[in-house]
Amino acid sequence: MTVELGKFFYPKSIAVIGASSKQGTLGYELLGNLIKFGYNGKLFPVNPKADAIHSIKSYKSITEIKDEVDLAVIMLAKHLVLQAIDDCGKKKIKSVIVITAGFKESGEEGVKLEKDLISKVKKYGMRLVGPNCMGIINTKGDVMMNGTFIKGTPVAGGIGFVSQSGALGAAVLKIIEKYDIGFSQFVSIGNKADVDENDLIEYWRDNPDVSVITAYLESFSDVRRFLEVSKSVTKSKPVIAIKAAKTSAGMKAASSHTGALASADTVAQTLFEQSGVIRVDSVEDMFNLAKAFDRAKLPSGRRLAVLTNAGGPAILTVDEAARCGLEVPDLSEKTKKRLREIVLPEASVNNPVDLLPPATAEVYGKAAEIILQDENVDAGVLILGPPLMFDTVEITKQICDAANKSGKCAIVVVMSQDEIIAEVAKQMPQHPPLFNSAEKAAWVIGEMYKYKLWREKPHGKIKTFNTNTKGVKAILNKQKKGEYYLDFDKVCEILNHYKLPIIETRISKNVQQSIYDANKIGFPVAAKVFGRELVHKSDVGGVALNIQDEEELINTESRIIAGLKEKGIESKLEGFIIQPFTKIEDGVETILGAVKDEKAGHLLMFGLGGIFVEVFKDVKFKIAPLSDIDARDKITSIRSYEILKGVRGKKAVDVEFLAECILKLSKLVTDFPEFTEIDLNPFVISHNWKKSKILDARMKVLIR
Amino acid sequence: MTVELGKFFYPKSIAVIGASSKQGTLGYELLGNLIKFGYNGKLFPVNPKADAIHSIKSYKSITEIKDEVDLAVIMLAKHLVLQAIDDCGKKKIKSVIVITAGFKESGEEGVKLEKDLISKVKKYGMRLVGPNCMGIINTKGDVMMNGTFIKGTPVAGGIGFVSQSGALGAAVLKIIEKYDIGFSQFVSIGNKADVDENDLIEYWRDNPDVSVITAYLESFSDVRRFLEVSKSVTKSKPVIAIKAAKTSAGMKAASSHTGALASADTVAQTLFEQSGVIRVDSVEDMFNLAKAFDRAKLPSGRRLAVLTNAGGPAILTVDEAARCGLEVPDLSEKTKKRLREIVLPEASVNNPVDLLPPATAEVYGKAAEIILQDENVDAGVLILGPPLMFDTVEITKQICDAANKSGKCAIVVVMSQDEIIAEVAKQMPQHPPLFNSAEKAAWVIGEMYKYKLWREKPHGKIKTFNTNTKGVKAILNKQKKGEYYLDFDKVCEILNHYKLPIIETRISKNVQQSIYDANKIGFPVAAKVFGRELVHKSDVGGVALNIQDEEELINTESRIIAGLKEKGIESKLEGFIIQPFTKIEDGVETILGAVKDEKAGHLLMFGLGGIFVEVFKDVKFKIAPLSDIDARDKITSIRSYEILKGVRGKKAVDVEFLAECILKLSKLVTDFPEFTEIDLNPFVISHNWKKSKILDARMKVLIR
Repeated sequence: MTVELGKFFYPKSIAVIGASSKQGTLGYELLGNLIKFGYNGKLFPVNPKADAIHSIKSYKSITEIKDEVDLAVIMLAKHLVLQAIDDCGKKKIKSVIVITAGFKESGEEGVKLEKDLISKVKKYGMRLVGPNCMGIINTKGDVMMNGTFIKGTPVAGGIGFVSQSGALGAAVLKIIEKYDIGFSQFVSIGNKADVDENDLIEYWRDNPDVSVITAYLESFSDVRRFLEVSKSVTKSKPVIAIKAAKTSAGMKAASSHTGALASADTVAQTLFEQSGVIRVDSVEDMFNLAKAFDRAKLPSGRRLAVLTNAGGPAILTVDEAARCGLEVPDLSEKTKKRLREIVLPEASVNNPVDLLPPATAEVYGKAAEIILQDENVDAGVLILGPPLMFDTVEITKQICDAANKSGKCAIVVVMSQDEIIAEVAKQMPQHPPLFNSAEKAAWVIGEMYKYKLWREKPHGKIKTFNTNTKGVKAILNKQKKGEYYLDFDKVCEILNHYKLPIIETRISKNVQQSIYDANKIGFPVAAKVFGRELVHKSDVGGVALNIQDEEELINTESRIIAGLKEKGIESKLEGFIIQPFTKIEDGVETILGAVKDEKAGHLLMFGLGGIFVEVFKDVKFKIAPLSDIDARDKITSIRSYEILKGVRGKKAVDVEFLAECILKLSKLVTDFPEFTEIDLNPFVISHNWKKSKILDARMKVLIR
Repeated sequence: MTVELGKFFYPKSIAVIGASSKQGTLGYELLGNLIKFGYNGKLFPVNPKADAIHSIKSYKSITEIKDEVDLAVIMLAKHLVLQAIDDCGKKKIKSVIVITAGFKESGEEGVKLEKDLISKVKKYGMRLVGPNCMGIINTKGDVMMNGTFIKGTPVAGGIGFVSQSGALGAAVLKIIEKYDIGFSQFVSIGNKADVDENDLIEYWRDNPDVSVITAYLESFSDVRRFLEVSKSVTKSKPVIAIKAAKTSAGMKAASSHTGALASADTVAQTLFEQSGVIRVDSVEDMFNLAKAFDRAKLPSGRRLAVLTNAGGPAILTVDEAARCGLEVPDLSEKTKKRLREIVLPEASVNNPVDLLPPATAEVYGKAAEIILQDENVDAGVLILGPPLMFDTVEITKQICDAANKSGKCAIVVVMSQDEIIAEVAKQMPQHPPLFNSAEKAAWVIGEMYKYKLWREKPHGKIKTFNTNTKGVKAILNKQKKGEYYLDFDKVCEILNHYKLPIIETRISKNVQQSIYDANKIGFPVAAKVFGRELVHKSDVGGVALNIQDEEELINTESRIIAGLKEKGIESKLEGFIIQPFTKIEDGVETILGAVKDEKAGHLLMFGLGGIFVEVFKDVKFKIAPLSDIDARDKITSIRSYEILKGVRGKKAVDVEFLAECILKLSKLVTDFPEFTEIDLNPFVISHNWKKSKILDARMKVLIR
């Protein structure tokens, strides 16, 4: 899908509909911001009552404007908005921002108004940002558009930022001045009636002015498209997002194990992991990271050097680096020798290198250069502690210079001195990321390294299998309408059609047939009651394991029947399930499942069974369809993966076979959206795939 | 122990030895800071070459001063320091700060110099802060002492701060101006040659000028004293600490399970947990929390109300509150009704209450008041989003006023507008904590609530048991010198002396005796090789379980002996251990152990055995001796505690008995410091204490 959003960001002319000459109104502030920031195009204020606003000729109506208009910004009272859209339509304006609030967010009447707005926008073939938003910014030199009514001056840089919350957007624009965060483009998307986060992420993917994409989201407009679009972006451009409202109402109550383990936040978490979007929890973290992506190279490895003039901050940096998966390696002998030649005799030339407080600008710059040249070093955190009596700006500039020259990932930390950061940023437009916290710098480099690994990791392939799709289709076609569990015999058939290793299962109508089945399967066997209304077999005493011979089988089935009679549910018995008796000790008990989310589609779950899932909830979800790499990841990323590799003398299980089963289940739910919940539990996986068996399975379908 | 530190913080006169009239020197800056900050006492600069410094009469030598001197600050070159101490001694000065560096931190010669310094200080009965430090601050109105050479002006408040890193201390003093963090007393302790963190924490415990204690530590001077002192403080005053250098070299390599699980950071982590000290990882977190403790009431419960004029920040706050264990409850109908009377019709009166951007100062203040009066609400985060066109200072003041009046825990968040925070703080000296991030405010209230729970929790009692201490003493007295494992028969005797339920164990010298023992115990039995050099019994095929009768026992022992012969280690066999055969399935396999840290003493460990300890490392450490409450906590705080409560149809284990065993082990290692490592593994604990048995045990001792 191509999105035509260019005119929102690079308009040659803008009509400000609802511009006002009254100080303090949105219409006054927004037009004023456009002028103050130095918009490089033509502005057309529209106001029926004014001749000129902010010294610019004003028009009574949009249609009066003779020039072509690329973009309209509407700030009228809500009952006037639809008329303005009509006027824009007549004027053939294709890009419209509606700032006005009072739509979907404000009750029933607003919902209707927004619907009308959308249909008008569709009718004219327009794209719409808003309503209920704060506007758009593009700091690019030949555009210089601040089309918002927010106070403060945007700073230019490479960050693209889409915000679903106007207030957060505004808050961010307040802090950028102080923390040297440079925006390329900013959009407040408000109610997302038309243009949404997916449109913007896709648009920015191919926009060279944007080097890193950031997003604050409260909801996903379209989960599947987010996955698809983000995956296409993150391999070349980092995307960082906050997804708020984690604790909102979750998925609808689910009866399967898999469904019960999917929390309200599972979709978002899975979505981010699978698309390579870096999730953060705070605005500070988002922009610290974005600033580094924008201004520094990606680290080529995990080895971090730390330069400091004070021990304390360096120690905290090393602690944080270790926590974030980085190493703080020994420097090479050559580097140490070179350092010794320039530093004070008491200084430490080991990593972290401590120049001690008296270090001068020259020594600092030279030391930074030497350290970053070390072949054992992939990235650097260069810390300047609070100064005592030197010119901090000069020292910082020397360090920045060394960082720039190095060609490596480096962050310069000026501790607790935001005014120095602002000053250096002003004097030195091409500077490395400047931080005021050394721990944050270490965390950021850790995240950058993880992103680098993600970039290098192949997406993998969606594998195809020789499955009997027609067979499953035939079964589902015969099912009645509604949402319910399939009969166990159908479940077995479906699993067999997809070559998922359900244990050999025979369903016998009576004791004679049970004996026949048991002999066919071979003793010892397990016998379980079979019946549409006997879903919870154990609860009615309907499960018997390790039956050694015919006599025991006859006795067992008689006892079970007597038990059902006692409970008065004998009539629900439709027969017996006869299966080989398998000892779980031969393998590891796992659980494999799927649950359908209305918006995200099927989520596949894998984890170790029994106590691991019950107590530790140690499971991993992925959105189907899964690639081969996804399936592998799913297995290796659970905490108890070590158990699959073999502990306490057990052999490692056949992970390849397990991955294949996950992919087959992924294919099954992708082929048949009818499945709403599937539990393969327990799935006993052994070192030998032939011994790996699904011992029980449940499938819920929704047939419309 | 009483510490006499009063003269460091409340001196009536100070000698500045090494004061200088040369701008840019430490001696110039420190004296200048004392004067500029308005020290309420007499200053005596000492400098052999100057007549007056900073317009104050200067003395050639300390001894020349006629007045009494309470405190001396020494900033001389290091070779002059000892002479200065002698002079101070003559002058009977009892409190000395040595700023000068070049002692222990700078190599061998410095170590010697520091030793000499300490012995002189001891000789004169002085107390010493430093050397290699940045000085002391006390902002108290009748003292007004800034005895540091750090730039910037301290702000008064209730926080006490001890920093082992001078640079971090200086960095913090830079940020306080901006973030409204008020210090009462600050000490840079440098090399901690005499006065250390424990002295200060103890001193501040009883100092009414300090409401909350903060510490940045790189090492503990005395772990046991830290535990004791902190425990005595945290029940009345919060202590917040950063312990850096987590990744430094750990404990010496240990061969026991327990030892291997104790990481480099285990001592620090255990120490903080057990003493109620709140551990944080960053300076920002430390002072955000300290500021809230200093300026807000403790929340009486976990129910948080959020007030906002913008949705986004409120959602992030609710997410963070949930993560931190807080609830965001429904407001009472009465509160909602009262709110509806004052807010805009479109505003939301549910929690979070959203007043929308047009909310005025009056409405904001009134709404804050109403919300905090709700009986469903224990604490509030009151957020003011970035303003569009109102007087933010006025709104903030109204909110602060409501928070002050409420008598409840409340934090006021002015998003991204530090200048407003500074202005409000200036205009309104008695203000609630002012934050610039709403998520941080939620986190802080979560921590305050946890602290409140800690405060209310009893320490518990050290229980005594009727143990046979003499019996153990007799065994240990007979042991040879060195560090080694005790023989298994001795281990069993010791456990029996302390009524720790080691499985019934008989050690037989030959097959005949084994048969006798097995019959005494009753079949089925387990047989294991016994021998000083056969520590790893399984590795030599020396363990046989579930032996049914005499014949099987004879065959088994013969087979084991044959196996040892084959390996050529037959001579190491000293006999057989005969025990009842117990099925682990009857209970839960746990591990109970102890390991001795040189500084901290014995750490006791508890966790679930087998896979849980191997894969999840799900264990808990505590420093001995443990109180009954400690033992309970130890059990309930492991992640797999649910398993002990009974899962999958199993009964809950006898937790009381388990706690008793932990306490007995605690008593054993407290009674006998000779033990360096103890593993009781597996300790199978059942629902019936009589069936709960230690199946194997190892004890290492160090006999000097």
